[in-house]
Amino acid sequence: MSLEAVKKEIDANSHRFIERLRDAVAIPSVSADPERRSDVLHMIDWAAKHLEALGADCQQIPNGTQQLPDGTEIVLPPVLFAELGKDPKKKTLLVYGHLDVQPAEKSDGWNTDPFVLTEKDGKLYGRGSSDDKGPVLAWMNAIEALKKLNIDIPVNIKFCLEGMEENGSEGLEDILTREKDGYLKDVDFCCISDSQWLGKTKPCLTYGLRGICYYFVEIQGVSQDLHSGIFGGSVYEPMNDLLWVLSQLSAVDGKIHIPEIHQMVAPVKEGERELYESIDFDIDEYRKDLGAFDLTTMDKAELLMRRWRYPSLSVHGIEGAFSSPGAKTVIPAKVVGKFSIRIVPNMKPNEVDDAVVAHLNKLWSQRGSPNRFKAYPGHEGGKCWSADPADPNYQAGARAMKAVFGVEPDLVREGCSIPITITFQELTGKNVLLLPICASDDMAHSQNEKMNVRNYIEGTKVMAAYLMELGKL
Amino acid sequence: MSLEAVKKEIDANSHRFIERLRDAVAIPSVSADPERRSDVLHMIDWAAKHLEALGADCQQIPNGTQQLPDGTEIVLPPVLFAELGKDPKKKTLLVYGHLDVQPAEKSDGWNTDPFVLTEKDGKLYGRGSSDDKGPVLAWMNAIEALKKLNIDIPVNIKFCLEGMEENGSEGLEDILTREKDGYLKDVDFCCISDSQWLGKTKPCLTYGLRGICYYFVEIQGVSQDLHSGIFGGSVYEPMNDLLWVLSQLSAVDGKIHIPEIHQMVAPVKEGERELYESIDFDIDEYRKDLGAFDLTTMDKAELLMRRWRYPSLSVHGIEGAFSSPGAKTVIPAKVVGKFSIRIVPNMKPNEVDDAVVAHLNKLWSQRGSPNRFKAYPGHEGGKCWSADPADPNYQAGARAMKAVFGVEPDLVREGCSIPITITFQELTGKNVLLLPICASDDMAHSQNEKMNVRNYIEGTKVMAAYLMELGKL
Repeated sequence: MSLEAVKKEIDANSHRFIERLRDAVAIPSVSADPERRSDVLHMIDWAAKHLEALGADCQQIPNGTQQLPDGTEIVLPPVLFAELGKDPKKKTLLVYGHLDVQPAEKSDGWNTDPFVLTEKDGKLYGRGSSDDKGPVLAWMNAIEALKKLNIDIPVNIKFCLEGMEENGSEGLEDILTREKDGYLKDVDFCCISDSQWLGKTKPCLTYGLRGICYYFVEIQGVSQDLHSGIFGGSVYEPMNDLLWVLSQLSAVDGKIHIPEIHQMVAPVKEGERELYESIDFDIDEYRKDLGAFDLTTMDKAELLMRRWRYPSLSVHGIEGAFSSPGAKTVIPAKVVGKFSIRIVPNMKPNEVDDAVVAHLNKLWSQRGSPNRFKAYPGHEGGKCWSADPADPNYQAGARAMKAVFGVEPDLVREGCSIPITITFQELTGKNVLLLPICASDDMAHSQNEKMNVRNYIEGTKVMAAYLMELGKL
Repeated sequence: MSLEAVKKEIDANSHRFIERLRDAVAIPSVSADPERRSDVLHMIDWAAKHLEALGADCQQIPNGTQQLPDGTEIVLPPVLFAELGKDPKKKTLLVYGHLDVQPAEKSDGWNTDPFVLTEKDGKLYGRGSSDDKGPVLAWMNAIEALKKLNIDIPVNIKFCLEGMEENGSEGLEDILTREKDGYLKDVDFCCISDSQWLGKTKPCLTYGLRGICYYFVEIQGVSQDLHSGIFGGSVYEPMNDLLWVLSQLSAVDGKIHIPEIHQMVAPVKEGERELYESIDFDIDEYRKDLGAFDLTTMDKAELLMRRWRYPSLSVHGIEGAFSSPGAKTVIPAKVVGKFSIRIVPNMKPNEVDDAVVAHLNKLWSQRGSPNRFKAYPGHEGGKCWSADPADPNYQAGARAMKAVFGVEPDLVREGCSIPITITFQELTGKNVLLLPICASDDMAHSQNEKMNVRNYIEGTKVMAAYLMELGKL
């Protein structure tokens, strides 16, 4: 049977596939919020039921407990293993995805309820629609279409779906390490669909990712919040200290003011810049889409390199200070600043951690405040990653993309981290293909996250085509 | 009838008075939260009913509407006028208090539900217990006790109770200005009980208050929050700009880095420092109570002056950035920094506003960021205030304090603002007595706000004694 028949079958079922995404988005599986933990568990059960309906053998691998800052322990979501096909004559594909999502509240600035999938102008708005429920469901849709047409799937598929990706993938690496000679033993290829295209219309394959190191800077001045009228002028205010420390970390254009960081970055090789110059990317459209008044550079290659192959530092926020609308006259007693650094080859998370914490401590000693200061890394840093785009796995992906979209995909890197990518590469010893199906303006982690209907449905076709291509290797 | 009988009557009713406070605290009349507006209205009705039961004529003066940032309008709480006694042969006392409270959530770090009055070790914990429901109820308790003993209250009393004090007293000044020749016409003395003692045990009278000017610094970089992995390195991050601007406002010890501000402060007069040196104040105990590692000075007179007669600047927080526990990898699109300056004689709010906004704009031009910047003052600045402590009204207050506590009260100033104080002074042309009954560690505006049972009950006696003393003038 031809790919054309599969495409037709997928188009014919597009309404049902959108309803499936609506059901998944309706489960607010926010992994960072302990009160939503039962929703994450529910989401994993939901996915297991759907995969079982497709004939998969599902196993929920217990993942122990998580300790909250107040000392209480709550269960970590199990990891979902689902095996479809166990034919020893076939090669085996490992597919990774995640079922949890970033926090979202309508009051953050969403136009619609983030947990009610809302279709408008060909876009499906909802938290997790693109990161990463849409892509996970596209696999299910593709398999369902192939089965319905009685097309033999030419590879065995092993799913590994987790519920803690947005919160450091806690526990997953341990489980996978234990399964190195078990579930992962006979894997031949890996595929992850948890990133985005560079633009809105042209597909790409991703062969590199930045890593991430996250930091907390805690400053305590007094034992509880104070009235600024009664006490202002008499105490060393921790907020004042924190603003100063955080303001010292980078220049106005974001250049990181921690000298050791730059020494760790791999030098740009001869000819490397040309790779970036050949990529299809409209910098002015990018600026306009973001609503930015200016970018840190308007040189295309340089901008792509700043997003992908140089480190960046972002301050995310402050915990403990007044953050609501309106006016409050408080001196916060203890504040926690949060920032992260995106890391690139050859930066190693533990070396970055050491350099950053030492730099923060040095800044603090310069500050000369009597307050209590503590700087420490967050969950274990995510390493950066790159793969060989000449590998047959990438070629199968490229052919699938071309068969659906009619163009060769760009070969790109990504600025964000999918720490598990490197884990799969190391544990299976096999190539990992990043096969994005989401558009660059899908706004993962932001307000009004969406997935285009086109990307969801054509992405389903790409996955079906990729499975068929793998059979030819 | 002697004051001793009144004291006895008050002691005998202390349990009932505490229950009255429990009822008032249970109404979460948070004026800054539009969703709590109905609770503020309910609180005003509650107070009117209690005052009517004491024989007062109550009037709720409509106060128009408030426009929220999103453009919707909600009703402002009416101002409660309550007149007890209209004998033209008696002098008239105006009593001001407020029935609204600061925001409070158990999750802010309260040990108990902030809206359930909880008694422990002689302390009554609850939002508003001391600021300002406790003192308002102490007036009611005192009047009730005098009436029960058939003691003629030797002055007419006019209450003015509002529900927007914690949110800029919106509308109150307009209403009072209209009533200059109406409700306020025949006032002979004013009394406000909405401040604190300097320490925990010795009473004081307050003859000076700092004012407040509140500022917002808005910086927008992009049209919506971004994923720091995907976009980090390519955009000018507004959080980075804001941290820098706010960090430039003061030195580590809080000294304000806006030169014009210091030129506005009245020079210290000869002998002025000695006034502060004579005040009963244990600086080391103050430091320990705050849990501070150090204070900006350990010189008693200098510290009191920094709290009362010099300006101070506090950064309260940032709106729009990540502020919850845990980790989130967001580049906030728009952030709003909030800070305030406590002002002292001879600083005028409009001049301070001009100097601060000009300074912020100057800082911004130095910053060289392409982002959009807007700095503006919040609700109209509150002027600073001072009164003549030799006035007979203060002498009546001092005698009442001594009759209850057995010691002469210290004459002090306060660091916080009660902007309405100056309004009453200007509109009535009469002396305003600040008669605090709360202890310095009551933690108004903070977690675990409380009122000591002793202060509440003895404070009730002070108010009864003060009313009796006024009759002798």
